Amino acid sequence: MLDASILKAMESVVGGGNILGARDIPARYFHDAAGWKSEPDAVVRPRNAEEAAGIVALAYENSIPVTPRGAGTGLYGGCVAASGGIVLCTERMNARPRFHKEDLYAEVEPGVVNGDFRKMAEAEGLFYPPDPASLGTCTIGGNIAECADGLRSHKYGTTRRYVLGLEVVTPEGRLLRMGARTVKSVAGYDITRLWVGSEGTLGFITSAVLRLLPLPQARTALAASFSDAGTALEAGAALVTDGLIPSMLEVMDAACRRAASAHIGKDIGEGALLFVEFEDMQSVCRESAERASRLLGDEYGAVVRGDISGAERARLLQGRRSVLPALWTLKPVVILEDLTVPRSKLKNMSAEIEKIAARNGIEIALFGHAGGGNIHPAFLGGAGDGDEMIRMRQAVAETAQACAEMDGSVSGMHGIGLDKAPYLKLEIGQSGYEVIKSLKASLDPRAIMNPGKLFYEERE
Amino acid sequence: MLDASILKAMESVVGGGNILGARDIPARYFHDAAGWKSEPDAVVRPRNAEEAAGIVALAYENSIPVTPRGAGTGLYGGCVAASGGIVLCTERMNARPRFHKEDLYAEVEPGVVNGDFRKMAEAEGLFYPPDPASLGTCTIGGNIAECADGLRSHKYGTTRRYVLGLEVVTPEGRLLRMGARTVKSVAGYDITRLWVGSEGTLGFITSAVLRLLPLPQARTALAASFSDAGTALEAGAALVTDGLIPSMLEVMDAACRRAASAHIGKDIGEGALLFVEFEDMQSVCRESAERASRLLGDEYGAVVRGDISGAERARLLQGRRSVLPALWTLKPVVILEDLTVPRSKLKNMSAEIEKIAARNGIEIALFGHAGGGNIHPAFLGGAGDGDEMIRMRQAVAETAQACAEMDGSVSGMHGIGLDKAPYLKLEIGQSGYEVIKSLKASLDPRAIMNPGKLFYEERE
Repeated sequence: MLDASILKAMESVVGGGNILGARDIPARYFHDAAGWKSEPDAVVRPRNAEEAAGIVALAYENSIPVTPRGAGTGLYGGCVAASGGIVLCTERMNARPRFHKEDLYAEVEPGVVNGDFRKMAEAEGLFYPPDPASLGTCTIGGNIAECADGLRSHKYGTTRRYVLGLEVVTPEGRLLRMGARTVKSVAGYDITRLWVGSEGTLGFITSAVLRLLPLPQARTALAASFSDAGTALEAGAALVTDGLIPSMLEVMDAACRRAASAHIGKDIGEGALLFVEFEDMQSVCRESAERASRLLGDEYGAVVRGDISGAERARLLQGRRSVLPALWTLKPVVILEDLTVPRSKLKNMSAEIEKIAARNGIEIALFGHAGGGNIHPAFLGGAGDGDEMIRMRQAVAETAQACAEMDGSVSGMHGIGLDKAPYLKLEIGQSGYEVIKSLKASLDPRAIMNPGKLFYEERE
Repeated sequence: MLDASILKAMESVVGGGNILGARDIPARYFHDAAGWKSEPDAVVRPRNAEEAAGIVALAYENSIPVTPRGAGTGLYGGCVAASGGIVLCTERMNARPRFHKEDLYAEVEPGVVNGDFRKMAEAEGLFYPPDPASLGTCTIGGNIAECADGLRSHKYGTTRRYVLGLEVVTPEGRLLRMGARTVKSVAGYDITRLWVGSEGTLGFITSAVLRLLPLPQARTALAASFSDAGTALEAGAALVTDGLIPSMLEVMDAACRRAASAHIGKDIGEGALLFVEFEDMQSVCRESAERASRLLGDEYGAVVRGDISGAERARLLQGRRSVLPALWTLKPVVILEDLTVPRSKLKNMSAEIEKIAARNGIEIALFGHAGGGNIHPAFLGGAGDGDEMIRMRQAVAETAQACAEMDGSVSGMHGIGLDKAPYLKLEIGQSGYEVIKSLKASLDPRAIMNPGKLFYEERE
């Protein structure tokens, strides 16, 4: 419980309607999209950077935990108030972005929805590549805090590539500007990229300078169907080795495809799917798609539908973006992993995951981004079976271990949060962990920013 | 002077021939390419990561300054032993890189020459974009420490985009691995990018995992000549606004062009030059070059030589890469700036530089990378004229100020080192400076790594 005098002080910063005390908090502020849940003492909704700084300064003085929150679309608990205190929301910080078309960048507030930003950029003839599956609701602030990514990272890179500069509220409640408005700048340490993906543990993002690209002139998509997901992943990796540069290389297994078809009420076909798209000049798209079709058909026995039309493309992408919600309606418990391996190991990794699932008697579905070497195995369970939950957790741990052994990463795009914290050291080692802990201590000496996330100390 | 017992301990780590004490040090270890000079107490040449770690551990125990050094091609004093102590060289750490062709990355030691690495990658059908002008001698370790860049950053980004993972010796002398072998990874803070561009102040790089691209299938180059450099810069920026994505957009003014012609003994033409190159599939290169030629000729009155041949292209690039050495032979004193502004401000910035030069009575020459908004004004002076040196330094300070006012960066690619340290706060502000100082203090508590560089405290 927050002291009434502190609530009153915060109220004087953001105004009465923008601070919700314990009993007035709508339940949507308690949890993230995967169901991680915790109740804050208050929810605060600043309107601008100065208000946000005022709130964090009060929290700092009183050592109150601050959990930054965007749209709550994260999956690993990053935005829930695991240690109480306040949830600091970006939802009122969503002014129209300022586009600098000649210089290919925009200034964007954290509460702007990714999909809205994309559409506004497109209207200016500009392109913002990072496109999480939740782009219709997720916000730019959360995207940056998690270094989010979407379907296009093989060609375009992840969010970190597009953040030229940031303004943040530091844990002491001061405004800090970093980075540049130019692609090239090496003045001092690259603290901009340190903040990107720091999951709200180093401060609260109030504004970003985001790099934009010219809109691609054309797109060509094709859909290749396989008997199994392992071959689809292997075939996707082969396109990259062949020198092609697809913008999307999306895979889903037959179970995901069925679930997505049912969920959106439209038929998106049978078997394991590899969805390939090229974005470039028309001639490049055509040449690339022809080469890809031949390679997938001739070498990997795929049934290929080339140059698919606008409506079919839209249906497949809608299906792809709906896989996770579809699995959620299918099964009471869905544990989604987010691992990355070097592309040449995708097939082995998917075989390993199947073995792990079989060994533990767990049903799995699998989808992923073959370009980035990123696969999402979803472990599916029934409700209320304690033994099954233990086996699911065991499968998760074995998957993290297998991933580390294949030079992979335990988190390709969803972050660490609460969920992956126990596995972080598997990847970065004790010495890497000590380095990030010392950075955290030096930048957030009272440990008020998003406590409990990312860092994890095993109990003795 | 180092204590004899310390020298002996270091000798037992790297072997007798690989530690050069005071009087045995060849002069080439004293200075960088721009003439910044300082004498170390010893030069140490480890063969591998373990030896480097052993040396740094001894330096840490005894609080001896350590200055990492690659090929010494830097321009701002980064590799000179400004505070004495040891220079730690990467020159023996140059084993053949290990290429992972399927996964598009290579493991590379710091002493490998950039140009050698490029050639080996090309032989595998792979492409490493960052290409500093000094690529024939500069090394990968120095490139990473400075976040170096070359002629291609508009299309491909700078060195930071290609560093997937690093192994470094920490200031305490321990080996630390960070990053991944995958394009996507968000496990913990992005400390890999924090080390990239940290100019040897956070540790000694012993190995890097570098991302590679497929080799571009074709190249098309054109050379456009203008009456003045300002128009060449403006025209270059216009190509980007028009949606074209050139891989090179290089500008030099008439003075640089004349100097380069004389230096390489080959005619590279008259007037201000804009060199434009596209790298892509053949059809894209052709389409793009035609559009660029029309735009440069019709809108900006350029005299364009389109689709220039292999020999002519090689001559122009050789000229471009020789500009700085050419200016060095032309004038006794050359102060080279390295500023970046948003592309739309390139023309204004070049006009401002001309005014600053005229106001201070200094001769200037100018070249740069229009794609990245990066211009290199070179202030040229005679020898031994104290008043002129004062006016040159005044021009440098005014240029940094003008750059900050145009939302620019005081260092686009060459780093801060000793030279730009007084101007760093102009760009990152006092609060940004305090953040990087606290990071430095937490990671290098005894301040032994490259002391005197990047950080600068004004005397009271």
